[in-house]
Amino acid sequence: MSDAAAPVRAGRRGRGGGGAARRAERTAVSVETAKYIERNIPNYEVLTEGALDTIEANAEMVLAEIGVNFVDNPAALERWKSAGAQVDGERVRIPRGLARKLCATAPSEYTQHARNPERNVVVGGKNLVLAPVYGPPFVRDAEGGRRYATMDDFEKFVKLGYMSKWLHHSGGTVCEPTDVAVNKRHLDMLLAHMVYSDKPFMGSVTEPSRAQDSLEMCEILFGKEFVQDHTVMTSLININSPLTFDSVMMGALEVFAKNNQASIISPFIVGGAMAPVSVAGTLTQVLAEVLAGVAYSQIVRPGAPVVMGTFVTSIDMNSGAPTFGTPEASHITYGAGQLARRLGLPYRSAGSFCGSKLPDAQAAYETANSLNMGLLAGVNFMLHSCGWLEGGLVASFEKFVMDADMLGTLHHFAQGVDMSENGQAMGAIEEVGPGGHYLGCEHTQANFKTAFWRSDLFDYKPFETWDEEGARDTQTLATARVAKLLDTYQQPALDPEIEARLRAYVAEKKASMPDAFG
Amino acid sequence: MSDAAAPVRAGRRGRGGGGAARRAERTAVSVETAKYIERNIPNYEVLTEGALDTIEANAEMVLAEIGVNFVDNPAALERWKSAGAQVDGERVRIPRGLARKLCATAPSEYTQHARNPERNVVVGGKNLVLAPVYGPPFVRDAEGGRRYATMDDFEKFVKLGYMSKWLHHSGGTVCEPTDVAVNKRHLDMLLAHMVYSDKPFMGSVTEPSRAQDSLEMCEILFGKEFVQDHTVMTSLININSPLTFDSVMMGALEVFAKNNQASIISPFIVGGAMAPVSVAGTLTQVLAEVLAGVAYSQIVRPGAPVVMGTFVTSIDMNSGAPTFGTPEASHITYGAGQLARRLGLPYRSAGSFCGSKLPDAQAAYETANSLNMGLLAGVNFMLHSCGWLEGGLVASFEKFVMDADMLGTLHHFAQGVDMSENGQAMGAIEEVGPGGHYLGCEHTQANFKTAFWRSDLFDYKPFETWDEEGARDTQTLATARVAKLLDTYQQPALDPEIEARLRAYVAEKKASMPDAFG
Repeated sequence: MSDAAAPVRAGRRGRGGGGAARRAERTAVSVETAKYIERNIPNYEVLTEGALDTIEANAEMVLAEIGVNFVDNPAALERWKSAGAQVDGERVRIPRGLARKLCATAPSEYTQHARNPERNVVVGGKNLVLAPVYGPPFVRDAEGGRRYATMDDFEKFVKLGYMSKWLHHSGGTVCEPTDVAVNKRHLDMLLAHMVYSDKPFMGSVTEPSRAQDSLEMCEILFGKEFVQDHTVMTSLININSPLTFDSVMMGALEVFAKNNQASIISPFIVGGAMAPVSVAGTLTQVLAEVLAGVAYSQIVRPGAPVVMGTFVTSIDMNSGAPTFGTPEASHITYGAGQLARRLGLPYRSAGSFCGSKLPDAQAAYETANSLNMGLLAGVNFMLHSCGWLEGGLVASFEKFVMDADMLGTLHHFAQGVDMSENGQAMGAIEEVGPGGHYLGCEHTQANFKTAFWRSDLFDYKPFETWDEEGARDTQTLATARVAKLLDTYQQPALDPEIEARLRAYVAEKKASMPDAFG
Repeated sequence: MSDAAAPVRAGRRGRGGGGAARRAERTAVSVETAKYIERNIPNYEVLTEGALDTIEANAEMVLAEIGVNFVDNPAALERWKSAGAQVDGERVRIPRGLARKLCATAPSEYTQHARNPERNVVVGGKNLVLAPVYGPPFVRDAEGGRRYATMDDFEKFVKLGYMSKWLHHSGGTVCEPTDVAVNKRHLDMLLAHMVYSDKPFMGSVTEPSRAQDSLEMCEILFGKEFVQDHTVMTSLININSPLTFDSVMMGALEVFAKNNQASIISPFIVGGAMAPVSVAGTLTQVLAEVLAGVAYSQIVRPGAPVVMGTFVTSIDMNSGAPTFGTPEASHITYGAGQLARRLGLPYRSAGSFCGSKLPDAQAAYETANSLNMGLLAGVNFMLHSCGWLEGGLVASFEKFVMDADMLGTLHHFAQGVDMSENGQAMGAIEEVGPGGHYLGCEHTQANFKTAFWRSDLFDYKPFETWDEEGARDTQTLATARVAKLLDTYQQPALDPEIEARLRAYVAEKKASMPDAFG
């Protein structure tokens, strides 16, 4: 069901005073964004078919015999009853095979539309869409240290994401703007994504009413009819592991599913706390939870786009701290990818995960472990692909651009090996011969510009030059890059009338509510 | 031909005064070293069978039509002629199929013996043996900065390697001790490996005579008869890519092969300079070079243990600097692993590669990319698995312990997923149920100690504690770890008579030669 290539601007452009819109477009600077990754490489599969069969059978047993809880949600219990589940209080027991059967109506891939159709993404299949960090209440940069996030920080992260070549998606709560009331900040956040970026974005999930607000703002941005027929948000619905679905998240899921907007249905697991301390046990619980959540979305609206999510960390049993980039998390990420493909669902996992307090070597080791694994595990939507620090408590400006740079390696690796005649380069080997040098040969001259991935951030200078220039480490280089990107940022073109209507909607909504904090 | 399990101490222990040896053993502290990695996971394969066929056919064409040069080595040319190659000057053209046929006598795996048989390693099969950085003329630590390496530095690295749980091998030139004459330093280096560690090590390759010295020192350490029947060194023979075999390296190879000692036969390639700028072209040249080198080793002595080596970096075409942890290097490493397995040879590649000048985030991203790839590529012997900095110009004390810690993740990942009843953890899921907590459950209590890999170095503390303790980054933690390891180092037991004979050999040899520098 991919229609990424189709022109879908009808109802958006042209409307709302062509002159002003055209003027806005003329003055905007074009920012280069790579197309989402279309893998030309195999996936890595850590589990045998037999192991997958066992985990699937165990997950069915969990759903049928233990069941899941749908909390404070009588309508959901009614829906489950009608669908054939056994409901006992808030406990829903799903007969073997039922959940998987209900999941079958979920699409295996879908297009999420952006206001700039060149930024549309297709989630699923062999694709990988990269989105930034989500949720940190703190931010950090080298100059200001660690502090509570504000709306100003939020806007800066949206701008950095817009300017990052390897990021395909603007994300959602890139940080929690704590200087805006809890009940209002979703409006400012969505406005920032809509105005300061033209990449696709996520909707609010913290109340069903906020999901509804997200939808209404999308109707202004994309046009009401367009939103009815097209998916314009992919939002994050966490499951309260183990096996619990709360009414807030389910309420938001209901709003999105009814309106054909996409949801990532995602267990949130610190292994050993919210799931068994073993990989196979965790995968069983993850699969049971996803089956129940996705099945529920399809009861609400068959065909609603959903993504199988898996957020799993291990735990340091000495300190109780969640740990990242660990081999056990990798096993789970690879295994869950296999389960998602057998279920025929797009898959969300991995990210720039780390436990470190600073964007230092620990952070980079842990992050690289997770990013590489995400690519090879067949992840289709990678939330948190850049900027994550300190177990997700902090969004780091420096790490955002460091990780975003490193995402380029995933794009290049995913291209696979060029086996064309030019790739085989037999002429070059013959031309150079034993003891020769390839730098000057024709094949090198013809190919060197695109042959190798090159970091836009890392240091490749001779030692002496690097030393004279201040012996800067990666964080110091990243501080300079953040400043440069924000200095040269220019807002992407947006019809001024649409922008005015969005701002009016937000102002009106905010004025209608008292401030709620905490 | 693995005999790792067989007791092989005959002729070594007992000889040379049991009392002193027993006393030395009683006072020594036992250091825990993990067994070499035995993979219980699949390899990742980036190339199709068709692509492998093409590369193999191309490599045969290179050998038959372009050929390789054996420089300043008339005996080698004679050997090649007798084996059926066409020799024209120093150019050796190898008819299609001949090199592969000659390679067939090389063992697919071999045991390298250590003086402590518990540290024996089996190179090949599904195993991965980890050895430290090799070759840097400089060292760096946080306190002293970057400086020329000395023998004191060398000994410290050997001690750190001995104390590193995840390192199976003591390596070779862990740094170049520039305060000892070039023609003598191999003696001091070997002595350090033999005395300060009981892990397996590498021999000298910089002159055939130094390879011979290495052998003679092994005869003192292991006993002459033992060395005749057992492999006690794995040494690094680089090919002068493209397609050139110099007499120094080939001379060392000849000494080792004749004496049944193992050699890694390894193209050394900066892509775009010593090989085509494309992945498939580089793989073709790598395979041709390895086929010629391994075939030559088998002409010298059929059955001599050898390893297919692949050292490949990409190049930054802006600065000419070699770059590390890049996607192109990963393609080559995965592809070369597939070629090695089809050739039935153990495989050496990957390492703690990075271009960064400091053990910072750049260093860690690049290193993690390479380490992960090495595990999944089926590498059997990973030289440079810790301590590499600045493109190999620098051995870093801090990075040595940082990387060595990270090698633990490879061990844990390689175990694969436990699908036993305990691993499935269905009892735990039932016990905890929806909304419960796993921390206290029986399954968690029974398994938490071994369930998750845990760093011995990284920071897992709560933010406040970490902040109060000085907000230390990874490098700072590593500085402390280096000091602690060196402070608590104790020499492993060694028969004092053997040690005395080794020292006498070295002293005598050194006294017999003038100093040569440079």
